Amino acid sequence: MCEQSEAESDDLLHQRHKNPDPLERPRELVVVCGPMRSNINLSRIVRACGCCGVSKVFCAGSGRVIEKIARDGKNQVEISVHRSLPPLLKTLRNDGYRLVGLEQASISRSLYTYGFKRRTALIIGNERNGVPEEVLGMVDDVVEIPVYGLPFSHNAATATAITIYEYCRQFPQG
Amino acid sequence: MCEQSEAESDDLLHQRHKNPDPLERPRELVVVCGPMRSNINLSRIVRACGCCGVSKVFCAGSGRVIEKIARDGKNQVEISVHRSLPPLLKTLRNDGYRLVGLEQASISRSLYTYGFKRRTALIIGNERNGVPEEVLGMVDDVVEIPVYGLPFSHNAATATAITIYEYCRQFPQG
Repeated sequence: MCEQSEAESDDLLHQRHKNPDPLERPRELVVVCGPMRSNINLSRIVRACGCCGVSKVFCAGSGRVIEKIARDGKNQVEISVHRSLPPLLKTLRNDGYRLVGLEQASISRSLYTYGFKRRTALIIGNERNGVPEEVLGMVDDVVEIPVYGLPFSHNAATATAITIYEYCRQFPQG
Repeated sequence: MCEQSEAESDDLLHQRHKNPDPLERPRELVVVCGPMRSNINLSRIVRACGCCGVSKVFCAGSGRVIEKIARDGKNQVEISVHRSLPPLLKTLRNDGYRLVGLEQASISRSLYTYGFKRRTALIIGNERNGVPEEVLGMVDDVVEIPVYGLPFSHNAATATAITIYEYCRQFPQG
């Protein structure tokens, strides 16, 4: 019994910071951030991207990533800074990416039922103003995370991490 | 054509801060936080709970919620502060809650495939040390979020929000 207890105890062992799961193919998800108000949120998005094997973040604005928050994501994720999003989005579309905005809008589809295309550019809006109308007019789809109480929406970086999780759930091997 | 364009434009309208989706029944998910290092993370968890209709957070530690971060969650979510988790977990189990730890452990099940019981207490560990072994020995299940790159794990509050999202996806009406 004593041995069994020890075995059971072993079974519970922490594996914190264990090696990441291997991907069978590189992720074809990229994240595009409008000019964020907060470099903290941008840095949190970069950390989530690092964890999820997403290797590229495009952003408008300063693009300053805070290593204390992004952790290893700062080195794992390539940041590409752009003055304005529309020309970038045209390029991504030409490269075969489906443009998906994350926004509460009249045409939004629930993240619960939305089926991602593997090659997706996920577009995140500014914390206060969201995805600009100009950009919403360019995207192929808009998704939103159902909200059931107050506040009316998740923090922008939290919402991004949730959406990347949902993408990874649909493409667990890349 | 002009009218159609206007209609299409209307279709794209922002609905930021729209009313939350109604729940058919109150959420039976509660969140239990070990003593967190950061009140920022605790406050972010409270915001995510508010958004998801989760009305109760138990925590060890200071339990100080920062309104600037938790937003309306501070008023929507009841915070119950406890000196130590084990007696609380026993009470929750007696009340019919399934105790589910969020941790990278040898017995962890993937959040992708884990089926939540409606009445669940989700247990979150400290940012640095995770769910204590003592608590891991008490839980019914341990779940983890697959990680594919560096850093080795999501931020504690981000991981919590992702897990609550997954629960809500499984119980979209409560």
